[in-house]
Amino acid sequence: MGGDFAPEVAVEGAVMALKKIGKDSRIVLFGDEKRIRELLKKHNCSADNFDIVGTTEVIEMGDHPAKAFIAKKDSSMTVGFRHLVDGKIDGFASAGSTGAMMVGCMQVVKPIKGVIRPVISTLMPIVMNRRGLLLDVGLNVDAKPEVLAQYGLLGSIFAESVLGIKNPRVGLLNIGEEEGKGNAQAKATYDLLKEQKDINFVGNVESSYIFTGKYCDVVVADGFVGNVILKMAEAMYRINNRLTPFKPWLLNLLRPVLEPMCPKLYYHQNFWNAMNYESVGGTIVIGVNAPVMIGHGGSSAKAICSLICTMERNIESRVCDKLREAFKDVTPVEE
Amino acid sequence: MGGDFAPEVAVEGAVMALKKIGKDSRIVLFGDEKRIRELLKKHNCSADNFDIVGTTEVIEMGDHPAKAFIAKKDSSMTVGFRHLVDGKIDGFASAGSTGAMMVGCMQVVKPIKGVIRPVISTLMPIVMNRRGLLLDVGLNVDAKPEVLAQYGLLGSIFAESVLGIKNPRVGLLNIGEEEGKGNAQAKATYDLLKEQKDINFVGNVESSYIFTGKYCDVVVADGFVGNVILKMAEAMYRINNRLTPFKPWLLNLLRPVLEPMCPKLYYHQNFWNAMNYESVGGTIVIGVNAPVMIGHGGSSAKAICSLICTMERNIESRVCDKLREAFKDVTPVEE
Repeated sequence: MGGDFAPEVAVEGAVMALKKIGKDSRIVLFGDEKRIRELLKKHNCSADNFDIVGTTEVIEMGDHPAKAFIAKKDSSMTVGFRHLVDGKIDGFASAGSTGAMMVGCMQVVKPIKGVIRPVISTLMPIVMNRRGLLLDVGLNVDAKPEVLAQYGLLGSIFAESVLGIKNPRVGLLNIGEEEGKGNAQAKATYDLLKEQKDINFVGNVESSYIFTGKYCDVVVADGFVGNVILKMAEAMYRINNRLTPFKPWLLNLLRPVLEPMCPKLYYHQNFWNAMNYESVGGTIVIGVNAPVMIGHGGSSAKAICSLICTMERNIESRVCDKLREAFKDVTPVEE
Repeated sequence: MGGDFAPEVAVEGAVMALKKIGKDSRIVLFGDEKRIRELLKKHNCSADNFDIVGTTEVIEMGDHPAKAFIAKKDSSMTVGFRHLVDGKIDGFASAGSTGAMMVGCMQVVKPIKGVIRPVISTLMPIVMNRRGLLLDVGLNVDAKPEVLAQYGLLGSIFAESVLGIKNPRVGLLNIGEEEGKGNAQAKATYDLLKEQKDINFVGNVESSYIFTGKYCDVVVADGFVGNVILKMAEAMYRINNRLTPFKPWLLNLLRPVLEPMCPKLYYHQNFWNAMNYESVGGTIVIGVNAPVMIGHGGSSAKAICSLICTMERNIESRVCDKLREAFKDVTPVEE
């Protein structure tokens, strides 16, 4: 029931995802059961393909996230988080209120022991069909260096598990390459990251290089600047898409014929497609006890479909277990 | 003599700029006079078109900026700044060491009375062939809210004078539109900008909108995040340019024929051309007593040509006089 176009796009996206997920995976839909069944019928899709958990309430975008999460006990979001923490589902995603989703993460799923602050991340597009990881993309601003330094380990384990990158190179977003560059936060974080033995820290990385994948696979950033990067990337995608004389829909239509003949023609298209948030589906919460993803409020069906597929990879990688293992000896830090 | 490819590209760019500047404008070249004359000869350009001031020393990129600026009294940069402050030239630009350029700005040209910290800015490309202003792009990190609030007035006057935008809309770069969003610095800056009566402050602006020109013409940002935006824009330009199947050089070649027939074909090209640093030539120092611009170290001849043309507009707008007038009643703040 979360997002501007729920439940229509959520159901449509789930139907799209059915064809893409593994046969052992199962999609559980939380929401108005009657509407869900009507919509599935409209898409000529049997309700037997899904588990449906009927809920009666909706957390609206205008609601106070923390209050609504507690008060609306039968909202799709509150019930979903309950199922997640009870082990009835393996991961939970919603395009609903980000604030309420974070309440669910922090108060129901809870941070992994030893993690000071969980973080939200995005799979960055990198030229030549690869992906990197950018974290934080907006959860913690004015983050302490100790918090940022933990992103290094969180991101490294995530990139290795979910993206399959061996010994991922971790870079600190900064405005110069040399040690000692940047603001006070970046300088202090550099010193902490440098001391971490369990990650492959490659030093500072400038924003010029994060999309080239030349220097690093994981980019550590404060939530303020990470959010600026994420939104700017989305804006560039939209502007490029609107202005390009090579219509993306036409190129995609002709892809089966043209791409084998001239793969270079599609490098450009592939990069910009990957820049579209719809190709990942949303941001990934890292550092809590179970897989959680937050979709865009304005998610399309395609975005919901990607959200489900990314979630499946996230669950199958057992990244939360690996994070718990890595942080088990970390002394919890009081904030 | 500044920049990776000096003096070759500087002279070549100056020759290119000769055809673009007004007939009352005069380009003064500072550097190795013999080399300059040789290079002008190579380009079949009479030395009479320029004033040449011979200098014998060069500030290298490895030099300590402040020490080199003082020690190398006969470097093109030190002599250039001396000419500027003596009124022998009206503006000074170089692709040399940014650090040394800032020493010249702060110690020779000096900040305008009342301006806490001068700032470096860039002319942002905005869809449909317009320009906006982004400041700071990397000079002052961890800037105090009082410093950022002054960028509002500095940027507003600059945009009105140099870009010809009437009553420019000033936005504060933030990660949410509503008042109260962002980090501590952004929140405090918002409160100060809101109180300024002499600017048209339109509130927070997210990075999604800075290139659309939808909400504002002037974007105020801390130097850290502004630098991240600038470098990311340059990276996007390079990636797009490298991957696009519509070769930019070919489109530019065919422009005289194709653009009148199909202007839409060029919207895309025009936007990305404007995203290229070569189209502006460098960053503009705002808040010092005379026009100063800093080119990229790796400047091409085209970039130097743009640098000279942007400088000409800067000088003709008499923006420094207007800034002095606007700040004359501001009580100097001790940092």
